[in-house]
Amino acid sequence: MKRLGPLNALYPTPTTLIGTRVEDKPNFITIAHVGIMTLNTVSLGMNKVHYSNAGIKANKTFSVCLPSVDLMVKTDFCGIMTGKKTDKAALFDVFYGELETAPMIRECPVCMECALERVVDFPNYDVFVGEVRQTYAHESVLTEGALDIAKVRPLLFDMSSKQYWGLGGVLGNCWNVGKALKQQKSE
Amino acid sequence: MKRLGPLNALYPTPTTLIGTRVEDKPNFITIAHVGIMTLNTVSLGMNKVHYSNAGIKANKTFSVCLPSVDLMVKTDFCGIMTGKKTDKAALFDVFYGELETAPMIRECPVCMECALERVVDFPNYDVFVGEVRQTYAHESVLTEGALDIAKVRPLLFDMSSKQYWGLGGVLGNCWNVGKALKQQKSE
Repeated sequence: MKRLGPLNALYPTPTTLIGTRVEDKPNFITIAHVGIMTLNTVSLGMNKVHYSNAGIKANKTFSVCLPSVDLMVKTDFCGIMTGKKTDKAALFDVFYGELETAPMIRECPVCMECALERVVDFPNYDVFVGEVRQTYAHESVLTEGALDIAKVRPLLFDMSSKQYWGLGGVLGNCWNVGKALKQQKSE
Repeated sequence: MKRLGPLNALYPTPTTLIGTRVEDKPNFITIAHVGIMTLNTVSLGMNKVHYSNAGIKANKTFSVCLPSVDLMVKTDFCGIMTGKKTDKAALFDVFYGELETAPMIRECPVCMECALERVVDFPNYDVFVGEVRQTYAHESVLTEGALDIAKVRPLLFDMSSKQYWGLGGVLGNCWNVGKALKQQKSE
């Protein structure tokens, strides 16, 4: 196999719009360096230069809004512009939920309100760990009451290509398709 | 918008095979609760019940191997079976790199060797943070020497559907498609 050097290849990741209140105003930043830590705990890897970090630290809340592919241009704009100079919240219909200080975007098909659980500190990055407290979704992305990722149409991010990608089709059932091999091994 | 309760909706995530040495033998576990913390730092959210955790703590290394969709059955099998009872490494052509204690899978188009950077502790979960030290890829997934995610064909995981999903097509260029809106706003 070919050595590529220490290249992070853990893509694609979902592109998110993170909602915070900074200087008493709602702000949104595009973050795709996200993760899942426990079943109900998510992480955001955010460079310390960003305007949003202070808002998360002050309010101890943030939102994670999932734009669909239709919101690609606005989402990319929120990744290019800084809240220091641009009112990015003006692009969206903003609403608040139970935590009151985590602004969310009504145009996003799914939004999660998170309470800051801890900050994992790195030299140039704050990794914000949030516990999901409430999740809001458009009725149009539910199938029989459950979230349907095909209807969400998430905007995926890949660093190598520096491109946004769509979701493809279903390949198989988890904790299931491997059973055939289990059966075969036990024969 | 409809309230779904505190539902983690941060999917899809890349499905990975995590390589460790436990009790002096290579082992692989399927983990999709992964994340990116900094440019070269990845995280794995692993329930403390797993057999692999002790190996990561003892060796302070692990690998993150990315199966392509072709490896779905073996990947799912590695998520169903425990290394306590099953020699999952026997399924694969195993190789080692610079760190020597992080087994990797030659059938996976991309493998990353990681050095354990820290463990973020939760009541039932170890979140292992790894610094990527070296990345190995099949020549067949490179385009002009760079990793091509369309050729990797990663196996994506979604919790709501409990299904594996493929990657779709390119939608646009990051830090670029939003420039049109920037231009419009400045006029």
